Parts: sequence; C-alpha cells; structure tokens
Amino acid sequence: MKAVTIKRSDASNDLELTDITKPEPKRDELLIKVSHAAVNRTDIVTRKGQAGYAVNPILGVEVAGTVVEANGNEPFSAGDRVMGLVNGGGYAEYAVIPANRTMKMPDALPFSEAAAIPEVFLTAYQTLYWIGRLAKQETVLIHAGASGVGTAAIQLAKQLSDANVIVTAGSKRKLNFCQELGADVLINYKQQSFDEEVLKATDGKGADLILDFIGADYWNMNLASIKSEGRWVLIGVLGGSELEKVDLTSIMSKYIQLTGTLLTPRSDAYKAELSNEFARVVLPYMNEGKIRPIIDSLYPIEKVDEAHHHMEDNQNIGKILLYMSAD
Amino acid sequence: MKAVTIKRSDASNDLELTDITKPEPKRDELLIKVSHAAVNRTDIVTRKGQAGYAVNPILGVEVAGTVVEANGNEPFSAGDRVMGLVNGGGYAEYAVIPANRTMKMPDALPFSEAAAIPEVFLTAYQTLYWIGRLAKQETVLIHAGASGVGTAAIQLAKQLSDANVIVTAGSKRKLNFCQELGADVLINYKQQSFDEEVLKATDGKGADLILDFIGADYWNMNLASIKSEGRWVLIGVLGGSELEKVDLTSIMSKYIQLTGTLLTPRSDAYKAELSNEFARVVLPYMNEGKIRPIIDSLYPIEKVDEAHHHMEDNQNIGKILLYMSAD
Repeated sequence: MKAVTIKRSDASNDLELTDITKPEPKRDELLIKVSHAAVNRTDIVTRKGQAGYAVNPILGVEVAGTVVEANGNEPFSAGDRVMGLVNGGGYAEYAVIPANRTMKMPDALPFSEAAAIPEVFLTAYQTLYWIGRLAKQETVLIHAGASGVGTAAIQLAKQLSDANVIVTAGSKRKLNFCQELGADVLINYKQQSFDEEVLKATDGKGADLILDFIGADYWNMNLASIKSEGRWVLIGVLGGSELEKVDLTSIMSKYIQLTGTLLTPRSDAYKAELSNEFARVVLPYMNEGKIRPIIDSLYPIEKVDEAHHHMEDNQNIGKILLYMSAD
Repeated sequence: MKAVTIKRSDASNDLELTDITKPEPKRDELLIKVSHAAVNRTDIVTRKGQAGYAVNPILGVEVAGTVVEANGNEPFSAGDRVMGLVNGGGYAEYAVIPANRTMKMPDALPFSEAAAIPEVFLTAYQTLYWIGRLAKQETVLIHAGASGVGTAAIQLAKQLSDANVIVTAGSKRKLNFCQELGADVLINYKQQSFDEEVLKATDGKGADLILDFIGADYWNMNLASIKSEGRWVLIGVLGGSELEKVDLTSIMSKYIQLTGTLLTPRSDAYKAELSNEFARVVLPYMNEGKIRPIIDSLYPIEKVDEAHHHMEDNQNIGKILLYMSAD
C-alpha cells in the first residue's frame, strides 16, 4: 500500500511516498481503509527527528475511514465509518487502530471533516476539562486561537461552559475567524500587549485558565495575565522551551497551578478513556452542528511535502488534511 | 499590654518588646488572652521587611489561649480554651481572632502544644490534601522533614492516608525523629543525592507528590524525583527563589502539575474553611494521641530575639514557642 515514511538517508529528513506492506491488526485492533489523515505538529517534530512517536515508520496520528476488518471487536463491523487516534501509521492507505478508542463518525460529517476532529478536539477537551477544570462562565485565555487546537477550544469553551473566551492571534483574518467561532475578546499579539488586554477585559483580575502553546516567549505575560489561583496548562513551546531566570515566588504568591501535558505520548488506556468521554459529551454537539471541525486545506497524499510546509508557515486556520485517493 | 513589634529606626530591624493598647475585637472576632504564640518563618521574613503581613504592627500569626470576650459569637464563651490563626498580633498578651476560624483546643493538650498546631498543621493539610490531593498509599516526598510543617505532614500522610513517606533532612538526629513519626524512607541530603534515593525507593517510578519548601536549589532533583503525572507543591524557597534556566519540555513530557501556595496571605474565608475542615478531620486523631504537635523549645516573650535566632539556625525539630507569662 501507499504510505509516507521519513527518508533519513541524508540530512534533509524528507518525506517519502513509498510502497509498504499493509499492517496486520492485532486482536484488539481494527483495520481501517483510510480516507483522510490530518497533519499535526507532532508529525513535523517527528519528521525532523527531534523527538516523536516514530516506532511506527509511517507518519500520522489521526485518521478517518472505513472499517475493513472489525476483528470481532464490538460494536464495530466492516463498513463502519470511524475516526480516531492511531499510534503512528496515519499517512497510509490502510491503518490499524485500537478498537477501544475508535469513535463512530457523526452521520452528517464527510470523512474530510471527521479526520479533522480527533487530535485537536481531544487535546482541547483534555486541556480545558481534564486538566484545566474549566467551570461555567469562567474566563479562559486561548493562545494561537486560529490554530487547530485553538479553534476546537474556542468552540468547546463556549458551547459546553458558556465561558468568557479571550484569544490571541497574529492577524485580523485569524481573529475574525475566532470571533465567528464565538470568541469574546480578540487580541492581536503583534499589535497589543496581551497581558494588558486580558487585565482590561477582566476588571484587572486576570484569566481563570490559560491554554499555553507558546512557552518561554509568553512566560512573563502569562504570569501577569493569570488570576490568583488560576490554572495554566502548558501544551506547546512554539515560542521556545528554555526560560532564563524564573522567580518562583511569583508562582507561590499568585497560588498558580502550572500543568504540563502532551497527548501523543499518553498511554493507550488514557487515549481510550479520553476518546470515549469525548464521544459521549461532545459528539452530540457535532451531530447538531453546534460544534464543527475547522478545515484549512486538503492535499492529496502525493503532496504531503506541501502540506507540511503550509503548517510550518503558520498561515493555516484550522486543520490541514491529506486524502488518500481521488475516489 | 506587652507585645512584640519591629523597631525600624535603624538598619537592624530588631524586635522590640513594647507596651501597646489592648486590641478591640470587631463584631465577628473574639478577644483572647494569649498563653502561647508560635514562631514562624513568615515572622522572620516580616521582621526583615522583605515581605510580610505587617498591617498589624505586632508580629505573630498563631496563638493558643483563653477567650476573654466572646462578643456573642456562637459557639464560644468566655473561658473557652482556643487556638487558631490570627492576622498578625500573636506575640502579645491579648489578641483578636476571627471567630469563624477559631478552633476549640483538644481537651488533653496544654496551651504550649495547642499553639504549635495551627500554622504548620493547616499548611501541611492544605498542601497534602487541598492542593496535593494525596490518595491512600501514594508516595509523598517531604523535604525538611524535621521542620514544623514537615513533622506535621509526616504524621498526616501516615495516619490519614497510610502513605509511603520519604523525607529529607540534614542530620541523623533529625532523620531519626522523622522515623519515630512514621517516615518510611530517610534521606540525608548532605550525604546522599535525594533524587537517586527516591527512585531507588519507588522502583524507578518517583514520588506521586512532592512538598517542596526549598525551591531553586532542588529544582532539577525534584524534576528527577517526581512520577509521571505527579503533583509538586511549592510552599517555600529556603533554597532560593530564582532559577537560572528552566526547560519547559521537562514539565510537559512528565505531565507535571506544579502548584505554588502560601497560607498567611490567604483570605479570611479560606482560612475559616480550612480551619473548620481540619478541626473536623484531624482533631479527633489528636484527641486520641495518634497525631501530636511537635515542640522544639519554649522561650519567654522577653527572649523573642533568641527564639528567632534559633529558627534561623535551622537546628530546631518542630515548633519554637513563646509564652506570655510565668503563671
């Protein structure tokens, strides 16, 4: 079958569309004919060999497609339209997925939209609810509001919690889109000091919860933006991972809770529990059209290089998808 | 009445035993004739003018004594033996205390022991349970095990949670005492690398919870000692507050939750809720003698300077107390 692997024969770490044996599902796995796979930053990190999930030589951590072999795993049978997180192997014609984390697709959605759900919506749900414990009508500051996780988090925070949603993004186009999704306060980080804007928007109190994809570059402004006893969830270091000089008394005197998290390296059991709770709580909103996956662009699998470069350019609003064939 | 204030007329920030007007209780406060007050590090910080609670010119944040004016606040009446946190004003013959956080003393305890309870036991309870969410039979690493909060935390973790308690301290004498209180694993931080010892004692997994009074000096070893998804509660910076370099990916990849806290600057409502829950949950253990306040030494109020120096020498095991009169 066709699949995308990493060519490590030179220094470039290029992607390679290759022909590889179709995977064999284990007893508790389904075999899926992949319709669409989505591109994630973790794929780029893995491609570059900096870190990553590359036990599986094939890239890709999420897919939507059709069950080919259900392998006796209830409640699935051949022909079911499903989506979910895979342990690598998503950029391929066929992929295996643990049955206990597989989600049936909302009926109304095409594969292209379903493949845009798992990684970003599960990450947003995990960070907002499992870790961030967002309560009704609290204020949440979502950085990179137009990113995949950002667009998911805005919708979840509004629909599930009627939260006061503050977003940062780097262009008017991105901020307008965040507003369409329900964001209440829009901050252009290139033109404004976001900490000052957050304090203005919260009567000087700060945000109850911060979703931080940025890390080092925003450290001091996040400290200034967070409420006393606020929760701060660190889920990315797009702005650098190394902090120079941290004053620990600032964390003590504001009673801050800082929690680091990642989704991809979590255990199978964790992903299963998260997927099941998400399917139960959030998919009804998707069936009703109240929450929707956000698609930026679609690339045929042959143009996977372009898809990666597009993500690295940071111009996307929502998800970048790959499709496996033209049929 | 006699009371201890801070003489700021020269650079030394000495303590001064002075004569000052007896405080007037507000409607929701009790007036207490103080028998004993305890010395806390926050008093030393306040004395030095580095930070502190010094709205009240009189030092001291906890007392035990006898109610003189109950002021109609149920269930208290004149003559009751009580203890609790005061908003400054503890080092004095009389002190006022908000009624809703006042605790009746366990019958079996003398004033000298009751005054050793509030600050350290409430801090230990807050950090272990409200913030650290210690569960039955988890592993907790308690630094400065022979300190006031340390000796309280060891007993709470053993008695309430049957925890696996690992402590660090700087002498054999201190470690032996921690063992008497129930500590399971004893680490002399002057002779051993505590991170290696913690990993040895936990089959390489690390501690579920760390109570960190040290801060900067222990940062990297705490990172190495904590379990994946562990909770790390920062409640002091005896080893410095400024970190030179922090790698945020280490917090993300271990899914660490770091929470800063302090007790003294918390709101009156917070202290009331904490005191009431503590009295309900823990005082029965004290009445039965299963958990006990640890007294290091007693000083008459006239020797408050010596009491402070003794704490600054870090040789104490448990609490240092002041008593108001010889009767």
